[in-house]
Amino acid sequence: MRVYLNGKYLPKDEAHISVDDRGFIFGDGVYEVTRVIRGKLFAESAHWRRLENGLSQLGIRPPAGFTMEAVRTISERLLNDNGLADADATVYLQVTRGAAPRVHVFPPPETPATVFISVSPMQIPWELRKQGVKVVTQPDLRWARCDLKTVNLLPNVLARQRAKEAGGWEALLVRDGVVTEGAATTAFAVVDGQLWTHPSGHRILPGVTRDLVLKLASELGFRVHEAPFRLDERHRWQELFLTGTTTDVQAVVDVDGAPVGDGRPGPVSRALQAALYHGMGVSSLAEPG
Amino acid sequence: MRVYLNGKYLPKDEAHISVDDRGFIFGDGVYEVTRVIRGKLFAESAHWRRLENGLSQLGIRPPAGFTMEAVRTISERLLNDNGLADADATVYLQVTRGAAPRVHVFPPPETPATVFISVSPMQIPWELRKQGVKVVTQPDLRWARCDLKTVNLLPNVLARQRAKEAGGWEALLVRDGVVTEGAATTAFAVVDGQLWTHPSGHRILPGVTRDLVLKLASELGFRVHEAPFRLDERHRWQELFLTGTTTDVQAVVDVDGAPVGDGRPGPVSRALQAALYHGMGVSSLAEPG
Repeated sequence: MRVYLNGKYLPKDEAHISVDDRGFIFGDGVYEVTRVIRGKLFAESAHWRRLENGLSQLGIRPPAGFTMEAVRTISERLLNDNGLADADATVYLQVTRGAAPRVHVFPPPETPATVFISVSPMQIPWELRKQGVKVVTQPDLRWARCDLKTVNLLPNVLARQRAKEAGGWEALLVRDGVVTEGAATTAFAVVDGQLWTHPSGHRILPGVTRDLVLKLASELGFRVHEAPFRLDERHRWQELFLTGTTTDVQAVVDVDGAPVGDGRPGPVSRALQAALYHGMGVSSLAEPG
Repeated sequence: MRVYLNGKYLPKDEAHISVDDRGFIFGDGVYEVTRVIRGKLFAESAHWRRLENGLSQLGIRPPAGFTMEAVRTISERLLNDNGLADADATVYLQVTRGAAPRVHVFPPPETPATVFISVSPMQIPWELRKQGVKVVTQPDLRWARCDLKTVNLLPNVLARQRAKEAGGWEALLVRDGVVTEGAATTAFAVVDGQLWTHPSGHRILPGVTRDLVLKLASELGFRVHEAPFRLDERHRWQELFLTGTTTDVQAVVDVDGAPVGDGRPGPVSRALQAALYHGMGVSSLAEPG
């Protein structure tokens, strides 16, 4: 696999970071994962805006010429070089504050940021999408700026690992009794046919797919509440589903070993999944087998 | 400068990390900074215990033969190779969960951890120690496991940077009105001649120097409260000081632009500073000039 690192295209096993990189030493960087549908970046502008916002909020200065168009050109070259020119894939982009002797405060402004871009093939896991997944609740241990998509991801790593060990596909994070989101997804509950999802702000990531699904839900005539919903009201959830760049709309059929609704993906999540795939130009008829 | 990386000794500019290293991608690792006094590691066992605890809590398996003695041998060789055999210095040790394709959950258990060790010369900033420093309060935005010394340090980086921009040497972190600690130090207040410092637990790092200073304070006959103290009671602080591996005991003479006590280092912090330096075998008589 060929990757892009600081202006160079090279095999991944030759792509190396300085031990002084602030990504390695402090987790001092941001990232994006963008979906590629048959060779085309999906929701490119929304990902780019979030990245720019993160860089700006953290005071990380990207290199000159770091534009959405430049990243698209790099991404397309990587897709091409890796035999993914017309494929379904993801683009991973990470920008850190660069390499400098270890002090907490920002390095001199002329320190070049580190820019790393790689691509991976992606196939939609149709069985999971149809059957639904299990989730395991975990305390939301994250910091107070979950709206920033930084590589300080250890709480997410630990939550997902603990969920996996308990038989869950994802961790459902709970803070003060409120479901915030998944470790790497947005969470929606359906109550009385209406959607509930945690409001935007510092407690959740402003999900690109979250925004798309909110728009689709509105178009489909569902009432949506961007308002906290509590785990102790889970008996009222007719459905629960997750959204994300690689998760699309994914029904949850089990929380901590107890079924959600009748234990099968419900009509709201199925309708939104179909609408999202329609918008992405993905037909579930393309499903193999 | 020569460093150690995964079994090899090499010049720092040849020490490279894979772009897949989970330290770079997730901040999935722990670290220690240990003080070296005239070539000898100081409080080595306490640092080692904290490191082992962090590895254990995070489920990171260090390589075979990763013992305190092995790290001491590597550290001493690095000190020697870098002309610091009898010098005052620091040893930086970082262990990450290794390099593996990016998924949040832990990689296969046979994935080798990454071990990075470097040394740096260190001189005590005697002027700061004598004159005292200014601090700037910042909201404590960190996650709920501040007791783990991980490289998820972005909140600490941002707090120190904001403090610096406001003229502070350190950020004093405040959560729900309570002073937790500094961005890279432990905080102590002196009220009515007694010491107050945040209790151990998930909200602060279990500081090696914190423990030493608590012991010294007790030996010197000071009453110590390991109990929360609030920023809104700062008018009662006769003194405020910080402790840390490279901070020793550092008086604070100004918080957010207002003096602490009479604006000069007070007798309690001076006594504890002297006692710590005595215990470290450092004489402030060694101060240059």
